[in-house]
Amino acid sequence: MSGRIVVLTGGVGGAKLVLGLMQLCPPQAITAIVNTADDFRHLGLAISPDIDTLLYTLSGKANAAQGWGREGETWTFMDALKSLGGEDWFLLGDGDMALHVLRSHLLASGERLSAVTARFAAAWGLGLSVLPMSDDTVATHVETDRGELPFQRYFVEQRCAPAVRAIRFEGAERARPAPGVIEAIGDPETRAILIAPSNPWLSVDPILAVPGISEALKAASAPVVAVSPIVGGQAVKGPTAKLMGELGLAVTNRSIAAHYADMIDALLVDERDGGEGLAIPYAVTDTLMKTLDDRARVARAALDLAERIAG
Amino acid sequence: MSGRIVVLTGGVGGAKLVLGLMQLCPPQAITAIVNTADDFRHLGLAISPDIDTLLYTLSGKANAAQGWGREGETWTFMDALKSLGGEDWFLLGDGDMALHVLRSHLLASGERLSAVTARFAAAWGLGLSVLPMSDDTVATHVETDRGELPFQRYFVEQRCAPAVRAIRFEGAERARPAPGVIEAIGDPETRAILIAPSNPWLSVDPILAVPGISEALKAASAPVVAVSPIVGGQAVKGPTAKLMGELGLAVTNRSIAAHYADMIDALLVDERDGGEGLAIPYAVTDTLMKTLDDRARVARAALDLAERIAG
Repeated sequence: MSGRIVVLTGGVGGAKLVLGLMQLCPPQAITAIVNTADDFRHLGLAISPDIDTLLYTLSGKANAAQGWGREGETWTFMDALKSLGGEDWFLLGDGDMALHVLRSHLLASGERLSAVTARFAAAWGLGLSVLPMSDDTVATHVETDRGELPFQRYFVEQRCAPAVRAIRFEGAERARPAPGVIEAIGDPETRAILIAPSNPWLSVDPILAVPGISEALKAASAPVVAVSPIVGGQAVKGPTAKLMGELGLAVTNRSIAAHYADMIDALLVDERDGGEGLAIPYAVTDTLMKTLDDRARVARAALDLAERIAG
Repeated sequence: MSGRIVVLTGGVGGAKLVLGLMQLCPPQAITAIVNTADDFRHLGLAISPDIDTLLYTLSGKANAAQGWGREGETWTFMDALKSLGGEDWFLLGDGDMALHVLRSHLLASGERLSAVTARFAAAWGLGLSVLPMSDDTVATHVETDRGELPFQRYFVEQRCAPAVRAIRFEGAERARPAPGVIEAIGDPETRAILIAPSNPWLSVDPILAVPGISEALKAASAPVVAVSPIVGGQAVKGPTAKLMGELGLAVTNRSIAAHYADMIDALLVDERDGGEGLAIPYAVTDTLMKTLDDRARVARAALDLAERIAG
């Protein structure tokens, strides 16, 4: 197969799909557009969790068992930080610090996040394009029964325990897509645009909230295929199912399809749920991505579905 | 003995003397005024080498064999930084990073270096006062046969290899002594002011270059005693002897006494050199500080000399 593949992605689940794609396509053909609304400043450092998860996963550095951070990480920094009375609710591994410190330094020197990210991907020999959704600051805030919380306070410190009432993406209305984002989506050479099985409300919506991106998706000649994050009436990971309940939504593929409505052409669903009742084209596979083979299979099924739509 | 002890100090040698003093006096009686002209920004982080050496040494965290940094340090950060193509001429240990990151964050939040330093000393249970010479930025620049170098480039990157022609302390003329510095020197309760056996040109001169400090020393009622950094016609550590040669000075206690001239009342010299020919009062002891007992002995000898002068 030739042609470019574009993936809109959050962290863990999306990184697995991109890793699957890299088993099928030359990396130069792949462009990942990554959520940056989870990014935040902590101890003065610029932290980009989803970009880092992608970089770690694709370079074989991710701690798969833990689900975040680096394999073989050490924690001397955190121990010393605690001894000094520093904030310790957000864990920063020693190796992980290198990304944050160097990124903060480069950003302070005037480099844009997209350039920093490209530099890191190149340093680790990754051939694909990893694009932040925007070089401008967008910050997810979650309105909960315990008040409004910045995303990482909700997600890490409070472990998603508060009930979510609404979500807003501060700064999104003024953000511009990062260089290359609109071009990749609209590129006539692009043969498929995938939405990864990341949390639609927390990880994909911020990307769609950047002015120009959803318009570009609607105008794209390439088919847009979402991979549903629902497996067996649950979310594989993270707060998706809980969040859907709190937002008054059934945890079904119909809810996912309705959410992406005029943005997608087809939905890849898990065999445990099936696609019954969906008003858009769909395909069924085992979407659990435990092994590298699983990841390649899901990527293949998503590309096949895109090809069927385009065909 | 009662009364306050004030020490002007650089890094390693001075930290040993202060540790010696802590064997003799209650920590609350000790005020260390520390050189901050070695401080620099690296990767955006605020690094204060002499303050950190003091904090590590006094809290039992110093790597004595290495002469800098922390005992039991790990290096995961540096490894990851190198993999990203980050600058690696200045080594940052994982635990060491906690001081730099937290200090940078607190300074950026508007806290002054003196307050940050007091916070760190308190967090590690140190009872003494550790005062930076100034909260304002002063930066040592070394004019060498290879051009002018910022201090850490000369000291760490070039390992003191270039021949020194002159030394200047950028920003010193506008710097104000940190809160407590002038008060400690002039306090009528102060019974001795010691100048540690740190490099007079690189570590002590920056302190004396802050307007008000040398005037306060001259006006102080307490005797001012310097501990000579010369041992057997050499410097114990670092570039002192090499530097003296490059500046056209004999490596003798007479040179040290002449350098401090109207600033000191007496000089403590090593038994290998003696004090012959000195025009000021002096005492002789073994000034090598290998063990904790050595450090206490040198501190005791310096205090005894101060008492003799005062008496």
